[in-house]
Amino acid sequence: MKKIMNQPEQFVDETMEAIELAYGDKVEFLNGDRRILMSKAPACEGKVGIVTAGGSGHLPVFLGYVGFGMLDGCAVGNVFASPSAQKMEEMIRACDRGNGVLCLYGNYGGDRLNFGMACEAVEFDDIPTRTVLVTDDVASSPKGEEGKRRGVAGMVYAFKIAGAAAAMGKSLDEVADITQSALNRIRTMGIALSPCIVPEVGKPTFQIEADEMEIGMGIHGEPGIQVEKLKTADETAQLILETIDRDMPLEAGDEVSVMVNGLGATPMEELLIIYRKVHRMLTEKGVSIYMPHIGEFATSMEMAGLSVTIFKLDKQSKELLRYPASTPFYTNANK
Amino acid sequence: MKKIMNQPEQFVDETMEAIELAYGDKVEFLNGDRRILMSKAPACEGKVGIVTAGGSGHLPVFLGYVGFGMLDGCAVGNVFASPSAQKMEEMIRACDRGNGVLCLYGNYGGDRLNFGMACEAVEFDDIPTRTVLVTDDVASSPKGEEGKRRGVAGMVYAFKIAGAAAAMGKSLDEVADITQSALNRIRTMGIALSPCIVPEVGKPTFQIEADEMEIGMGIHGEPGIQVEKLKTADETAQLILETIDRDMPLEAGDEVSVMVNGLGATPMEELLIIYRKVHRMLTEKGVSIYMPHIGEFATSMEMAGLSVTIFKLDKQSKELLRYPASTPFYTNANK
Repeated sequence: MKKIMNQPEQFVDETMEAIELAYGDKVEFLNGDRRILMSKAPACEGKVGIVTAGGSGHLPVFLGYVGFGMLDGCAVGNVFASPSAQKMEEMIRACDRGNGVLCLYGNYGGDRLNFGMACEAVEFDDIPTRTVLVTDDVASSPKGEEGKRRGVAGMVYAFKIAGAAAAMGKSLDEVADITQSALNRIRTMGIALSPCIVPEVGKPTFQIEADEMEIGMGIHGEPGIQVEKLKTADETAQLILETIDRDMPLEAGDEVSVMVNGLGATPMEELLIIYRKVHRMLTEKGVSIYMPHIGEFATSMEMAGLSVTIFKLDKQSKELLRYPASTPFYTNANK
Repeated sequence: MKKIMNQPEQFVDETMEAIELAYGDKVEFLNGDRRILMSKAPACEGKVGIVTAGGSGHLPVFLGYVGFGMLDGCAVGNVFASPSAQKMEEMIRACDRGNGVLCLYGNYGGDRLNFGMACEAVEFDDIPTRTVLVTDDVASSPKGEEGKRRGVAGMVYAFKIAGAAAAMGKSLDEVADITQSALNRIRTMGIALSPCIVPEVGKPTFQIEADEMEIGMGIHGEPGIQVEKLKTADETAQLILETIDRDMPLEAGDEVSVMVNGLGATPMEELLIIYRKVHRMLTEKGVSIYMPHIGEFATSMEMAGLSVTIFKLDKQSKELLRYPASTPFYTNANK
């Protein structure tokens, strides 16, 4: 296992310690707890809290988006494992400013179970919560069963939209509805060329031949739609975009934001070559592109591969997307 | 060769095309030439031009730093190959606003030769140039022979300092002297765990065993100081920091910026674990840290590994470091 680390069981705690050392101007631990990261950004009185939670190993997801204009808090689990309901509960309490908290997270069993318990616990104390699940991965379940889909890189757009809506003073129901509406227009599909290794496990999450790629694989190595011979970049972009288009048809006149997300080991050059083809296909279709996002937004440590996310915009989501944000891993200086 | 690309010989052109498609609000090609990228940022009359050049395959270096507050232009070569003197000459001419151009680039034979010819050519037309070479890689040549050292991730700090000094209206000599003075206080050392593959070559740049690491390797796979058994993150950080400290002694009361730079395939979590140890060692020594940079700043495509750069600051370099910048891959919204 070729990783630059110390003891595998310290991997998450040491990463978290570094987050506070490096970004202590923006984030802090809740009561010194390294598994609950809180924003230090000053917030308006009564601002709705936006929280998430999930396993480690996906930086910048999840905790990298805690800060001004995005998340108020993030509970952090071990690599690829949900944090406990207890941590989520403490976080929700700490992020409530009297008008409730939106729990916005990927559709994974452990996270749902624990967030469910946490929300139930805080309701006893009259802290209202709403839950919005991210289910953007079109490859994880067929059309008609969208509710079973996993949440992947599209959640970064959801964090941005929810965070901006809350910063602009909207109510809990408004923030939740706006975020759900945005997610209804967000689709992602990914491919993987190589696995990653969970530090405490020490062996690859899956096996793949040197001339093959996994189409539709999840960010924890969940099986995709199929294994195929390695395609060219243009073929890959086309396959992804056509799959998304069948699920959420794009038409001339539409405006979208495109995210080309590297899973960890894939060079920026390759992400750009994919973006080039996506941009060309959309332009030929008469679809225009606003604020493209190209880089590493939701990773699986050293996995090679990428995902493409399409976010169909309307006037409100454009406004929320360009609203300022300042977090350790996402800065938008636009006004 | 597991790369997401089309024809290897199109790798650079397609990457460049995507750069303009994605970041066309900030950058543009010079007369449509995909190998010369220019900033579209409005500049003050008479601003000194800052240019660089180098081979592809290192994104965000070099061209990712073209934009407001950093570079005015970048000439782009094939993967790991210098662009021609002709391209450099055209770029220098286009970046001169009457007060000359600083050529700021890594100390590599091809780049030196070609920039030398380009500067000679423009001098015939009375365009003054100054050259500052980046030689931050302590592992590439021993103390006393600093002039033979290669330029690696420290060049990003140099671009930032030079770009800010030029934006603030300083003269060519002032900008060159300030940048050289900053570089005298910048040191980098890297380690590699795996090679990368040049698309048109199709085989790894070097071989390394599964339990070994290369200490002091260059960003094109140039041999380092030695091959050793894989160290822990803390041992690695310590080895790098102690080597830098022997070359440029750090003392209690010093203030530094630290860059932990991923070479391509190394996860953010591992970069943070290295940062943690560097931060602790510096703090124990009484050295304080300003604006840490953790992420991918100068890569070798899919190479696994990292480098640590230490930039010893003074009042002026702090001011220039926090000056605003807006480029495709570097944004500083501080005021």
